[in-house]
Order: sequence, then structure tokens, then C-alpha cells
Amino acid sequence: MEAKPVSYSRTVMSQIVLPEQANPAGNIHGGEIMKMMDNTAYVVARKHCRRNVVTARVDELEFYQPIFVGQLVTCKGQLVFVGRSSMEIAVRVEVEDLSSDQPPITALTAFFTMVALDEHGRPVEVPRLILETEEEKRAFEEGKRRYEMYKHKRQKKAQPE
Amino acid sequence: MEAKPVSYSRTVMSQIVLPEQANPAGNIHGGEIMKMMDNTAYVVARKHCRRNVVTARVDELEFYQPIFVGQLVTCKGQLVFVGRSSMEIAVRVEVEDLSSDQPPITALTAFFTMVALDEHGRPVEVPRLILETEEEKRAFEEGKRRYEMYKHKRQKKAQPE
Amino acid sequence: MEAKPVSYSRTVMSQIVLPEQANPAGNIHGGEIMKMMDNTAYVVARKHCRRNVVTARVDELEFYQPIFVGQLVTCKGQLVFVGRSSMEIAVRVEVEDLSSDQPPITALTAFFTMVALDEHGRPVEVPRLILETEEEKRAFEEGKRRYEMYKHKRQKKAQPE
Amino acid sequence: MEAKPVSYSRTVMSQIVLPEQANPAGNIHGGEIMKMMDNTAYVVARKHCRRNVVTARVDELEFYQPIFVGQLVTCKGQLVFVGRSSMEIAVRVEVEDLSSDQPPITALTAFFTMVALDEHGRPVEVPRLILETEEEKRAFEEGKRRYEMYKHKRQKKAQPE
Amino acid sequence: MEAKPVSYSRTVMSQIVLPEQANPAGNIHGGEIMKMMDNTAYVVARKHCRRNVVTARVDELEFYQPIFVGQLVTCKGQLVFVGRSSMEIAVRVEVEDLSSDQPPITALTAFFTMVALDEHGRPVEVPRLILETEEEKRAFEEGKRRYEMYKHKRQKKAQPE
Amino acid sequence: MEAKPVSYSRTVMSQIVLPEQANPAGNIHGGEIMKMMDNTAYVVARKHCRRNVVTARVDELEFYQPIFVGQLVTCKGQLVFVGRSSMEIAVRVEVEDLSSDQPPITALTAFFTMVALDEHGRPVEVPRLILETEEEKRAFEEGKRRYEMYKHKRQKKAQPE
Repeated sequence: MEAKPVSYSRTVMSQIVLPEQANPAGNIHGGEIMKMMDNTAYVVARKHCRRNVVTARVDELEFYQPIFVGQLVTCKGQLVFVGRSSMEIAVRVEVEDLSSDQPPITALTAFFTMVALDEHGRPVEVPRLILETEEEKRAFEEGKRRYEMYKHKRQKKAQPE
Repeated sequence: MEAKPVSYSRTVMSQIVLPEQANPAGNIHGGEIMKMMDNTAYVVARKHCRRNVVTARVDELEFYQPIFVGQLVTCKGQLVFVGRSSMEIAVRVEVEDLSSDQPPITALTAFFTMVALDEHGRPVEVPRLILETEEEKRAFEEGKRRYEMYKHKRQKKAQPE
Repeated sequence: MEAKPVSYSRTVMSQIVLPEQANPAGNIHGGEIMKMMDNTAYVVARKHCRRNVVTARVDELEFYQPIFVGQLVTCKGQLVFVGRSSMEIAVRVEVEDLSSDQPPITALTAFFTMVALDEHGRPVEVPRLILETEEEKRAFEEGKRRYEMYKHKRQKKAQPE
Repeated sequence: MEAKPVSYSRTVMSQIVLPEQANPAGNIHGGEIMKMMDNTAYVVARKHCRRNVVTARVDELEFYQPIFVGQLVTCKGQLVFVGRSSMEIAVRVEVEDLSSDQPPITALTAFFTMVALDEHGRPVEVPRLILETEEEKRAFEEGKRRYEMYKHKRQKKAQPE
Repeated sequence: MEAKPVSYSRTVMSQIVLPEQANPAGNIHGGEIMKMMDNTAYVVARKHCRRNVVTARVDELEFYQPIFVGQLVTCKGQLVFVGRSSMEIAVRVEVEDLSSDQPPITALTAFFTMVALDEHGRPVEVPRLILETEEEKRAFEEGKRRYEMYKHKRQKKAQPE
Repeated sequence: MEAKPVSYSRTVMSQIVLPEQANPAGNIHGGEIMKMMDNTAYVVARKHCRRNVVTARVDELEFYQPIFVGQLVTCKGQLVFVGRSSMEIAVRVEVEDLSSDQPPITALTAFFTMVALDEHGRPVEVPRLILETEEEKRAFEEGKRRYEMYKHKRQKKAQPE
């Protein structure tokens, strides 16, 4: 199984916010954005491992800007860290008002952890990640730290108290 | 503004998983579940403060069980912690196979932070929370710790480096 | 096949009314509510018989209150009567304004008759119903009267005139 | 306000059954069909009175045939009876398999009662109905009987017991 | 394979424009109408050949009238020309305001070319078309001209330049 | 009103094909793709003129490749020609199988003509187009020819015959 660079699976997905996705005050429901982010993470993960994948965790999902009906929302996803069968993807959401010349601004960010599954639904090994820039290397180390922290927490939960 | 107990805004929402919500292997897309959880958190928060609310953060969203087409998904949401204008809601998702007598099992959990807004979209004070059980008190203290940790992180980000 | 009490399959499903579900004056389209009620009846019936089920009849569906965009709609369904392969479910819809402290009010009610099917799509026997309260017994007798009236009408239709 | 014939508002609406509208066994959910029927009744009523209208009752909704994914469903609606502000519409649903030459068959029928509302949401008078055939006259008499029976029931409910 | 007249597969499909289908100014998005037209062409083609069909081309799609939220949109489709495995369908869209007595007006027109496929996804022969009126014959000749022009263009593209 | 280069409004939008968008044989309905293409053309046009825009024409829409459930569909749109108030956008659709390493292939192409409208719904002038490459200049000349041909056809239709 050949290792692949981060750029190989980088994904951009865009959508216009519809009235049905917003609350009565015109703000998009957080869940609509999360669905779009999960979709982007799904495509990144599938491109990297060419397998069926499922979402395992979402962390540090934070909204910086409200998003309104009629705006163009763009999700940018790229791999941060790869374990044996899990892949952590950073997703950044940019929002842009189509009626003005203002550049897009970052509205929210989060980390999605996806797991690759074989035909029987069991976790399966994924290709390693080729890190090409200093930023990719730094991000990988941080991803690894999060990965080990969650693994540690899980093991503690599974032990008798 | 009168304080309200946790039970006042507790909310349960159910839905059957449709084929359009799943990947080709029949697993529900994580984003569909997040949307449903956000919806539940939205109703809890609105019941507590009777104001427009928006999602500000999602933390520790973790899947324990895959969810499949045709299953009944139930989201249970209740307030954990209340700050000045922010409310942290614990959402637990249970999944149940309608073709068998097995009891529902917990498929995922997460904490949603919602913020109440006034008519101009500015954060506005919310009622305090009446804690009636030991478990509610313990959960409140943990929610407070998370709240202070995020506030601290935010302030650090905003300072010059 | 073990008999089951009414409480075993009782079901509650909630949803917020979206703009796309309403007419230009903001009233929810009747069809959207009926779809939600049918969904609730479907879950009740499947929980009771653990089989595939289809809708056979809807009776006395009556709207008492208009329902508007942004309100929380809650469907409560429970078994009333059980024949050989048919199950009659009473569905009550309550509506609640999330921006006020008013308690929910009943907006509509109806009786749904669902039929259990085997793998070949043929009607199949369902578990009997255990009646635990005086109200459940009274409701069962009324359900039986409706059941016999419809059966009678159907036989008359099928005979030469 | 000019009286109008039945033919003036007669309406036909068609749709292909999508996978998302069906249960795992491929049968369309009853609620999807009810939504489509309600939509047809809504168009008939609006054409007759050129006002906002809401659903008030649904009666004798009965399924004769299961409907499956991929079939063409056609709803035919026409006015049966007109009161002061209420209109009763008979809706018949025909189903047709696009892969064969078989003629469409009737899958279900029901009566929808719609009420015309003014700008303040109050019931408002609608045009009278011009009956042109013997069948229309007979149907009108039956609709009138149902109308008076429901009115009678409602009044009894409203009285002290 | 028996030839069939134009009238055999003529199809009418109606729908009310929902808020979610429109831009912020209330105009329906062109794509929503195209989807509805394609649906109508799909039904016409399937009725004629009773096979799976896919869209191969769309030509001369032209909007004459803006369409707004709440209007009733009616698509009328009929066969114009039939080749060996391809069928050209003229689709006309009429729009009607439910709050007035004005007759419907033509909002757009287009030609859809559908191709019949066998179980392996290969083009398959379709029944010939019986032309019953002078207008049908004239339309068929024009359809044939378009058909030959596109075939000619395709062959030129496929040749070395 | 400042002229803008083609690159200023170039737009890429992606989506995974869902089961509900396909016919029973798994091919995406042409209408779903057209809707996505129209959406892309809408974003391109709005970015160029920062006004409300509506679709006026679609030409030479041609499918080269069937598209199936689960594939990733990417629409790429860019301005070809700009008249006084109309903008012609070339939209190319690429399709990619997420389970293999194959590069994306072009599945269809078309030209969309969008018109900019002022607040009263009347056509309004749009910025001129800055052509930076030889290919952009050649495409502009072809777009101009199409524009003049359609204008000519329209005028002929409008004259007495």
C-alpha cells in the first residue's frame, strides 16, 4: 500500500445556504454546517484510502462567525494525521457574501477522525501520509498527540473502576 | 429572570434512518447524526432561555456504535452548565432496531455549547440553572471546567504572540 | 407470540416546523403533519409486531389548531386496538411555541390502521394487546367497533349490487 | 363572488416514487402519499376560492394497493361539496408501473376538507359550486351529509356534559 | 415491437414552487425547473419504450417568464422524434398564479433527448412513433434535422483534426 | 463599474451522488446534474456582477458519460462571454469514482446564459470581462456568435409573420 501526500486527497466543497437550513432569524443551523463538514472529511478520507469510511470522532468544533441565508459556504478539508486505520482531517469553513466584493472569511474549524472499514465492517489499515512541508509536519505531531490522548482516555474507560 | 431546573428543558427527539442519509455500505453519515443532535441542543437551549440561539462549540463528539438504515435514532438532550449567555447541553444518541426486541443502545454522545442572542444578534443573559440531583451538580462542575478552559484558550489566541 | 402491553410500543416523535413545510401565510401544510403522524404510527406498529408494516386506513383526522413555522411539533402514538393482522393507533399532535413558556396544546388527532406483512407481502398475525387501565379497555372497545364497521363496509362493496 | 363549476378547479399532479419515500421492503410510506394528496387538495381549493386555505379534516382515507419505488403516482382532485367557508375535495390516487403497458389502477382515495382564510387567518366565504352532471349532484348530497354529521359532532363536544 | 402514437406517452406533471427552490429575490432557481422538466421527459420516454432511459442532450432551453414562490408550475412533455434508440421530447412549462383567475402562461420550453438502455447499460432499439396530425409530422421533421446535425457534429469531433 | 478577469468569478462545486438522485438502475437523473450546473453558473454570475441573477438560456447540454450513485461530481464554471446585462458561463462536469485511483473524467458540458436584474426585476448592466489568455479570447468570440444568433432568432419570432 503506497503512501500518499496530503495534497493527494485535499478537497474543496461549496454550497449556497438555503432558507430551509436556517432558523427564523436567518442564521444557518449549526447541524447543517456540521453535515457539510462531515461530507468533506468523508471525501478526503475515501480519496486517501479508497475504502468505505465512517466518522469516529469530532473535536474542537468552533464557530467564529455566524453564517446567513444566501451566503456561499466553502469547506476545505485536508489530512492532518494518519494512524493504523484512523485518519484525522482538519476542516475549515469559509463564508462569502455573493453580493459584495469582500474576500471570504473563516467561519469555523474542526478535526474529524474517520476510520476505514473492510467489507465486513472491521477497521482496516490505510496508506501512510507523506509530509511535504514544515506546516504539515507540525500539524501531524499535534494530531498524533490528540490521537494518543483519546486512545488513553478510551483505555481508562474500558478498565474496571 | 427566573431560574429553571434541568428537567424544564429536557428534550427527546426521534427519527428513522433513511437510505438517503447513509453511505453505500448502509452506515448513516456522521453529519446526519450531528445535524439531529444540534437540533436537539437547539430545542433544549430555546426552551431554557426562550430566545434565538446559535451553536458556538461542539466537543468530545464520539461514536461508539455504527448506525444503519431503518434503525430508530433517539436524541436525548439536557442542560449541563449555564454561563452568562452560553448554555452547555449534553446530547446522547440511542439507537434501536425496530425488527427485534433488543433495548436501545447508546451510539454516541457530545457536548453542544449554544449562545442566546437578542434581536440585534448580540449575546444576552440567560436564566440560571436549578440543580436538583447530585449527578446534575457533578455534571455542572465539569461543564464549568470545560467552559473556563475554552475561555482561557480563546483569550490566549486573541493576545499578541 | 407473546402479548404485549400498550406501554411497550408507545412512541413520541418531535420536530421543528421548517419554512419549506409551510404555505406562504406561514401555516404548515396538512400533508407535512400527516407524514409525521404516519411515521409515528409506523414506529408504534413495528415495535408491537417486529414486522414490516404498511398503512391501511386513516380516520377522523381533524385539525383543532393551526401550526406555524418555528413551532415544536410532538406526535404521540399508542395502540388502541389489535385485530388478527391489523393494528389501530391513536396519534395525537401537540404544538408548542419555543419562544414562550406556554404549555403545549393539542393541534390534531387521528386513528391510523397499520397491517403487518410477512416476507412475501401477505398479512400476518400480530401479538395480542394487554390492556392495563380502564381507559385502554374503553378505547379498545371503540376501536373494535370502528374495525367491524369498516370490515362490514368493505364486504358490502365487494358484493354485486 | 361568482359560482364556479367543478371542472374549473379539477387538478392532476404526478410524481415518481423515490427510494427515500419507501420503507426497507420498498413500499411507499403512507405519509408520503398523504402529503401528495393534501398538496392536490390544496391546489383544488385555492383555484376555487383564490384565497389562502388550510386543511381542516381528512376522512375515509383507504389504501387498496401497495405502491412501490419507481412507480408513477398520479393524484386527481375535484370538489365534491362547498359550505360557507369549507370545501370538501375527493382525491383519488392512481398508480402505474412505467416498465409495463398495464393501465393505471386506483391505489387509494380520501376526502379532504379545506377552509378558506382571510388575511387575518379567519374563515371567509367561498364561491358556490355549479353542479353540471348527475354524478356531481349525487356526490354533493353525500358531501353535505358528511359535513352536517361533523358539525353535529363538534357541537356536541363543545357542550357541557 | 409495436409502434405507438404520440398521445400514448404524453405526460403532465405539476408542482407548487417552494421557498427552498428560489433565490433570495423569490425567483425559482433555473436548476429546479430543469430537474422537473427532465423528470417529465423521463416519464414520457419510459412510457414509450418501457425501458430504463437516461438523458443524453438538452437543447434550446429558454426562459420567457420568471417563476415565483407559491406559483403552480405544470410541465407538459410529448415525443417529437424517435431514432433507433434515442427519443426527442418537447417539454413546455406553464406557470399559474393560484391567487388570481389568470390563465397559465408559457414560462419556458426545451428539447430533451433520452436514450433507452438494456440491462447492461447499452443503447437498445425503441418502438417507432405513429404520427397522427400535421403538427406532429412537421415537428418530427424538425426533430430529425436536429438529430442529424448533432450526429454530424459528434462524428466530426471524434475524427482527427 | 470595473471590468473583471475571468479568473475572478471562476467557481468549483462538488457533491456526492445520493441514492435519491438516481433511477432504479443507479444512473443519476439528468435533472439533478442540471440543477447542480445551474447552481454553479448562478455563483459565477453573482460573483461577476454582485447582483441578483436569473437563468435565461441553456444550450448544447450534452452527456458524455453516465454518472452513478456514490461518485463524486465536480462542476467547474467560468465566464465565456458578457453582453450588456447577460453573462454566458461554460460549465463542465467531472466525475470521479472514490473507490479507485482513476483521475476524474468529463461527464458533461453546457453553456448557461444568466441575466443580471436590479431591485425591480429589470435587466441591469454588468461589468465587462477582461480576457487574459488566447483561449479566453477565442471562447469569447464563439460566445458572441451564439449571443447574436439567439438575439436574431428572438427578433424574428417577435415580428409578424
